[in-house]
Amino acid sequence: MAVPTDLFTDFPAELPEEFIQTLLSTPTFRIERIVSRGHSSPEGFWYDQETHEWVLLLEGAARLTFEGEGPIDLRPGSFVNIPAHRRHRVEWTDPTRPTIWLVIHYKGEPS
Amino acid sequence: MAVPTDLFTDFPAELPEEFIQTLLSTPTFRIERIVSRGHSSPEGFWYDQETHEWVLLLEGAARLTFEGEGPIDLRPGSFVNIPAHRRHRVEWTDPTRPTIWLVIHYKGEPS
Repeated sequence: MAVPTDLFTDFPAELPEEFIQTLLSTPTFRIERIVSRGHSSPEGFWYDQETHEWVLLLEGAARLTFEGEGPIDLRPGSFVNIPAHRRHRVEWTDPTRPTIWLVIHYKGEPS
Repeated sequence: MAVPTDLFTDFPAELPEEFIQTLLSTPTFRIERIVSRGHSSPEGFWYDQETHEWVLLLEGAARLTFEGEGPIDLRPGSFVNIPAHRRHRVEWTDPTRPTIWLVIHYKGEPS
């Protein structure tokens, strides 16, 4: 699929799985758009990633939990930096509308 | 200024200059939020940058021109990759409301 020209509208109407699309990839980072609709991490599952991740929620709503902390609610405009191996999970995304994320997976320490 | 928790709302009401804020910086890329309100490039001015730039318009409206091409209109969700030294200018941003950009300045060729 070609790279979309409109991040907010150009995705499938039905989302049996999360829709994940690479928008730009370089040797040190990758920009993805993810569209969720009611998707969440399986019970007991924690992401534990080799690379850092910068996440911006653009539309919809989601709840994220870092291991050992209370859940945080994300709304449009919310962003969070997730260091590599910081265990986290997506507790919930809004089932009534698409939740659109911009995600940057990257290597190299933030300064 | 601390990094905002809401990209869409947390910026000054008055914008005599464009508001430019680094959200994350690593050795190979830098994520910025820029808020414009009627700002544009000076007459005859062209950006000619050492690094590549990936630009996403989140709110508002803008018109961008690459040297030797016609202008392109950006609306929320529009994104464009600008290779280093690809001369370009911002012809126009909406004077009636804030235009919010997410900009990633980066080194390293896209794959």
